[in-house]
Amino acid sequence: RYFHFCKLPGRVMGIRLLRFTSVVIIVLLLVAGALTALLPSIKDDKMPNLRREPKALSQPALDAFTLIMQTYNRTDLLLKLLNHYQAIPHLHKVIVVWNNVGEKIPEDTWNSLGPHPVPVVFKVQTVNRMRNRLQNFPELETKAVLMMDDDTLVSAHDLAFAFSVWQQFPEQIVGFVPRKHISTPSGVYTYGSFELQSPGSGKGDQYSMVLIGAAFFHSGYLEDFQKQPEAVYALIDETQNCDDIAMNFLVAKNTGKSSGVFVKPVDIRNLEKDTNSGYSGMWHRAEHLLQRSYCVNKLVNIYDGMPLKYSNIMISQFGFPNYANHKNKM
Amino acid sequence: RYFHFCKLPGRVMGIRLLRFTSVVIIVLLLVAGALTALLPSIKDDKMPNLRREPKALSQPALDAFTLIMQTYNRTDLLLKLLNHYQAIPHLHKVIVVWNNVGEKIPEDTWNSLGPHPVPVVFKVQTVNRMRNRLQNFPELETKAVLMMDDDTLVSAHDLAFAFSVWQQFPEQIVGFVPRKHISTPSGVYTYGSFELQSPGSGKGDQYSMVLIGAAFFHSGYLEDFQKQPEAVYALIDETQNCDDIAMNFLVAKNTGKSSGVFVKPVDIRNLEKDTNSGYSGMWHRAEHLLQRSYCVNKLVNIYDGMPLKYSNIMISQFGFPNYANHKNKM
Repeated sequence: RYFHFCKLPGRVMGIRLLRFTSVVIIVLLLVAGALTALLPSIKDDKMPNLRREPKALSQPALDAFTLIMQTYNRTDLLLKLLNHYQAIPHLHKVIVVWNNVGEKIPEDTWNSLGPHPVPVVFKVQTVNRMRNRLQNFPELETKAVLMMDDDTLVSAHDLAFAFSVWQQFPEQIVGFVPRKHISTPSGVYTYGSFELQSPGSGKGDQYSMVLIGAAFFHSGYLEDFQKQPEAVYALIDETQNCDDIAMNFLVAKNTGKSSGVFVKPVDIRNLEKDTNSGYSGMWHRAEHLLQRSYCVNKLVNIYDGMPLKYSNIMISQFGFPNYANHKNKM
Repeated sequence: RYFHFCKLPGRVMGIRLLRFTSVVIIVLLLVAGALTALLPSIKDDKMPNLRREPKALSQPALDAFTLIMQTYNRTDLLLKLLNHYQAIPHLHKVIVVWNNVGEKIPEDTWNSLGPHPVPVVFKVQTVNRMRNRLQNFPELETKAVLMMDDDTLVSAHDLAFAFSVWQQFPEQIVGFVPRKHISTPSGVYTYGSFELQSPGSGKGDQYSMVLIGAAFFHSGYLEDFQKQPEAVYALIDETQNCDDIAMNFLVAKNTGKSSGVFVKPVDIRNLEKDTNSGYSGMWHRAEHLLQRSYCVNKLVNIYDGMPLKYSNIMISQFGFPNYANHKNKM
């Protein structure tokens, strides 16, 4: 019996050892949890794709940007613009989103007139959709994306400066075309531009969006765009409009800041009238602005709130001579 | 003997328990260490005073700023300016650094012409020193400091806008007077302004400092300034100059960014000629600019490196009408 009794503690100690190690393991697990919880997570949570590096970035790709240009029914303008962009500093690659469904891409013409230092990739689309340009293209190797409409020409100098500004505000849309929303007394929002009075008191104006038809933004946002509610895609496809408004909502939600930073362009021009196709952009449609106000209100419902914030900041290049003979109008 | 033997495990278990708890305690200590180490420390380490709230901030003090103005031999201008600042929105308090050693402060005149909504505190100094204005004044209750020279007038609109910009760049000096340093081939630095060619390639100019004689900055930097090497104070006192250059070094070191953000003023004027004292500022001294280049090189030695970074960003208010009849020159 004594013998028996005296064996007991041995087992007890075995159990203690077991309990001891398990407790230590639990503590360590808690540690791991606490650590991950306490890491500077605000940014990570809100903009995973800005911190993650999905593709290994080659050195040039770090101080460079990719031009994404969607084109429809303006191949003559497209070729003019592609020529212009061959000479832009820091341009890593051009991705042309080819919305001319069933039409042959002008690759032969392009190659026959080479050599071209900046590679151009044509992405042939099967459906002519506004949001085709907002795909997370596998060819995209840079963190910086320059998105341009196929009827807009911006001077190389403006692009170089805006890129340097984007590098200082990589979470935001840094571009040349500001817009705003206004809340009416009824609570319904109106979309517009300079013609609308900004709510901010005092002199001056404000903006709450920067259009992506002439802007730099982080490629991570293209990844984020793939994760939006179906209703957002439906809205864009139904209207063939508002993809840029949706992007501003996405960025404002991610950052909690104003979605855009407006860089005052020295020379930006609309080339629409230069096309032989005679095709004029979607924004000439009578319902264009009505649609955009409609989209703002729809997006507020979808995202259950208005994330857009106003900004009154306009950035221009210090000491840059502003030629009087420049047409600054768009 | 059995009894004796059977007691043993008890003690053993006591020791185990002791060891167990001590191990847990050690693990927990390690956790604590790891946590503090892993907290987002870059900012905290570099700018403790921007994160710390040394004084409990009253609600108004959070959306307000304190004007610190040093005055010497220009009491007539001082009173003009104090009148102007009574009407500035968001101004919480005025701290006048009274460098007229032994002279009576104009408090009676000031009070006899009241009431004055914004309190004015006169800080009588015992020595006439340039760096008197860079004390961590106990009367300072706001995070934002507006520092102005006693011969400079900036429009209320410019101040209101610049304050809103500072709230978006609280780590930097947000002001109206940009300057730059240039590295000569010999490695010696030269201090200057627009007349010097900026090293950056391309058109436009750059700046690497924003003078604190007309700027907003975080009150935490006044605390930081008290912790600088003695050699910095000696340099400022020896030259009666360069306190603003030293502040730009301090901020650039703290942030790793450009020390300043330049806001283009719509109306800023120098009132120096309006004083009856006939006193003209230190910067008229023949050696003024030579001293400032000398200071830049000295500070590089003291801080063992050149922390100043260039910026080409100029901020102005979006949509603000720029009156042609405004004198924009300083």
